[in-house]
Amino acid sequence: MGSQRRLLLVSSSTVHGGGYLGHCQQQVGSFFGQKVKRVLFIPYALHDRDAYAKTAREKFESLGYGLDSIHESSDPVEAVRKSEAIFIGGGNTFRLLKALYDNSLLQEIRKRVLEDGIPYMGSSAGTNVATLSIHTTNDMPIVYPPSLQALGLVPFNINPHYLDPDVNSTHMGETREKRILQYHEEPETPPVLGLYEGAMLLVEGDTATLQGVTGAQLFLRGQKPTKHEPGTDFSFLLMDSNFQKP
Amino acid sequence: MGSQRRLLLVSSSTVHGGGYLGHCQQQVGSFFGQKVKRVLFIPYALHDRDAYAKTAREKFESLGYGLDSIHESSDPVEAVRKSEAIFIGGGNTFRLLKALYDNSLLQEIRKRVLEDGIPYMGSSAGTNVATLSIHTTNDMPIVYPPSLQALGLVPFNINPHYLDPDVNSTHMGETREKRILQYHEEPETPPVLGLYEGAMLLVEGDTATLQGVTGAQLFLRGQKPTKHEPGTDFSFLLMDSNFQKP
Ligand SMILES: [Ca+2]
Ligand SMILES: [Ca+2]
Repeated sequence: MGSQRRLLLVSSSTVHGGGYLGHCQQQVGSFFGQKVKRVLFIPYALHDRDAYAKTAREKFESLGYGLDSIHESSDPVEAVRKSEAIFIGGGNTFRLLKALYDNSLLQEIRKRVLEDGIPYMGSSAGTNVATLSIHTTNDMPIVYPPSLQALGLVPFNINPHYLDPDVNSTHMGETREKRILQYHEEPETPPVLGLYEGAMLLVEGDTATLQGVTGAQLFLRGQKPTKHEPGTDFSFLLMDSNFQKP
Repeated sequence: MGSQRRLLLVSSSTVHGGGYLGHCQQQVGSFFGQKVKRVLFIPYALHDRDAYAKTAREKFESLGYGLDSIHESSDPVEAVRKSEAIFIGGGNTFRLLKALYDNSLLQEIRKRVLEDGIPYMGSSAGTNVATLSIHTTNDMPIVYPPSLQALGLVPFNINPHYLDPDVNSTHMGETREKRILQYHEEPETPPVLGLYEGAMLLVEGDTATLQGVTGAQLFLRGQKPTKHEPGTDFSFLLMDSNFQKP
């Protein structure tokens, strides 16, 4: 790749008992660093964009960053073009991806991140859309995007909010593991990294490292899933020869 | 409508501790009755169609019905045209709906059920595709169907495997209720009937009755969800003026 990309892909904006982005605020600060002054926020995953921008703005200002919400801009593509950093928040992944398509933003975000090297942070749905596709979202398909192909900033998929099967459950719906294994029954499907809540993946160029405290479950097509601890080097997932810019 | 339709829409093929279709076998027998000799099974929701047909065949034979699996037919449309009853089983709803489109089956199934009045049974994903759309499936979007519009045999949506929020959970993913409420944030979205596992909806012409032992949760756009007991008459959901053949 040789890409300049810098990505912070967080499993969930909150963990149980914590506030908005509380569990990852240290990583957020060192990720955006001193040079970034303002972050462009994309609130499309939630219905009430004003309220969502207010929540995000308060948090980012407390960390020393200004925040512009893209929905307040009359020209969203231009807003991306001028941005020095991007944060896409969680909510419903289908709604988010459809809005990215509706506003013709995918190509410009891809260019800014992969070519210009501006930092991209995603949380939950915002992490899903950073990957190859949203085929491994947990969300309900409340709208129909023109494609499930996403930004493709990394050549694999992530499953955010990953969780182990609940051995005490009497519910007969598929476990998360079973759902991802069903995805891998389909031909030519890429690796899926299941990020437990509290985990995040830091990508810097061709290096990927698991951060946070909870770990991840890695699914490779045709292989048994494997559990990985914080600190794991996942750079090999970036070297996948299947890398495709959708 | 004046439709001759007869539908048995089951939430899940199994309930905790029971065997395949065990909890609804009495309803299955009285639904198909004495006149039906053979049931056409559609196993598209699971990857291993042979194994799935074997499971379904054993159960239906034990209830006194022959079973033909559509995947064993060289002409699936013709198989629907000749069928005297249809059963679509559960699995992944996206995979199922895509296969129905790929095999050009939607129009023929709709005709046989709504015009010719042959009985249609669905379970889980097979229940989802009987409704207006699969916008309220719980499944992972492992493939991309050409549309989320489904058979439209009833003018509303169902959420199978419905479950109440787990008050002891520390997981931060959306509850089922929250997901359906997000669906209803979208404009012109139809009612959603959340069928608890163990529940099923019997539709006969313009009459709909909740059967089974667990009940259902009804979501009408812009209203608070309401819980309903077995025996509830849901015929008013069939009179919805929004009825659309997709
Ligand atoms: Ca979500
Ligand atoms: Ca399913």
